[in-house]
Amino acid sequence: MLVFYDFTPAPSPRRARIFLAEKAIETETVQVNLRTREQLGEAYRAINPQCTVPALKLEDGTILTENAGIFAFAEAFRPDPPLLGRTPTEKGLVATWNARIEQEGFAAVAEALRNSSPAMKDRALTGPIDYPQIPELAERGKRRLEAFLDMLDARLAGRDHVAVDTFSLADITGLVVVDFGKMVKIEPRDDHTNLRRWHATVSARPSVGRQAR
Amino acid sequence: MLVFYDFTPAPSPRRARIFLAEKAIETETVQVNLRTREQLGEAYRAINPQCTVPALKLEDGTILTENAGIFAFAEAFRPDPPLLGRTPTEKGLVATWNARIEQEGFAAVAEALRNSSPAMKDRALTGPIDYPQIPELAERGKRRLEAFLDMLDARLAGRDHVAVDTFSLADITGLVVVDFGKMVKIEPRDDHTNLRRWHATVSARPSVGRQAR
Repeated sequence: MLVFYDFTPAPSPRRARIFLAEKAIETETVQVNLRTREQLGEAYRAINPQCTVPALKLEDGTILTENAGIFAFAEAFRPDPPLLGRTPTEKGLVATWNARIEQEGFAAVAEALRNSSPAMKDRALTGPIDYPQIPELAERGKRRLEAFLDMLDARLAGRDHVAVDTFSLADITGLVVVDFGKMVKIEPRDDHTNLRRWHATVSARPSVGRQAR
Repeated sequence: MLVFYDFTPAPSPRRARIFLAEKAIETETVQVNLRTREQLGEAYRAINPQCTVPALKLEDGTILTENAGIFAFAEAFRPDPPLLGRTPTEKGLVATWNARIEQEGFAAVAEALRNSSPAMKDRALTGPIDYPQIPELAERGKRRLEAFLDMLDARLAGRDHVAVDTFSLADITGLVVVDFGKMVKIEPRDDHTNLRRWHATVSARPSVGRQAR
């Protein structure tokens, strides 16, 4: 049995949870409470020295400690439905858009939140080492997130999905980023009509809708 | 014919260049001079609005503007030799290690360099929007890079390759990060013996050795 290390309210494991649900891959799930800093304790550090969730323990004991690793494993382990693209061109487009959303969107929210939240003092980065907050980074993150939402809205004009004609990892990452943005009080504007339409559609998928965030 | 948008001295396109060379994928190559900010000019912006290299134009006109997209395309387009892992577990490990090296290593050097170099004033991030340098980030980047080199040295104890038993994308990214670190005057220490052994071996590969950095 696969073992999934999760924290339901956090955005990173949410990406993996949706991906695994789309593929109907069953796991045992272990909650790691980030609010009490359980991820920094000795027990979880023995599982993932990076002190992050998600992580996925495979049947042979291998532990994948990054979303990228979980996606690559799951796509090869259960190819249907394909979430990383079907043809070489589609695979290139899905990976390109997913990377853009991670860098321009996810990183922006994380930068804004981790450098401003009192609960995250000295936790400006994930991982075992404490780094102090940098207030300028929080501001920069908000500016970047606003630019990202504009970009994603433009990309979705006339499109049902972000990267290719079918639902893919890029949609999952985009959805999670848009919801994560609420943590820093930045949401799609009323005139982001493409983004709002797409967000409503992807949020209604069974893999997404039935899950707590 | 594929068209590869490159700038030989830069670390990001170097990753794609080595990857494509390992697979003997031929391209036409176009140099985009980052030193004269050609990537921000109208001509290149029409190709890649993100103003970054590398980019790869496919035969149908699709343009992949991220390394992640180029790797995913190339692995599917020419599966041999596999650089993203052979089995589901290997694919998970290669993607996990590649992601760690990108985040803990590549991002650390970029943070250190872009927030300190006089030539990169207001270019703290890649992309079309100018962001001012944050000196604290330059210092943080150097600390992170030192921690990364320690981590990679420990990982390579008794191993010939970073992620799996064969050469993979994780080795390419690691190699490029170690060389990129010289730009901020941080190199493997004398006692990083595993890292130094691995670096010498991977640097001698024909795909790496015959290329200008």
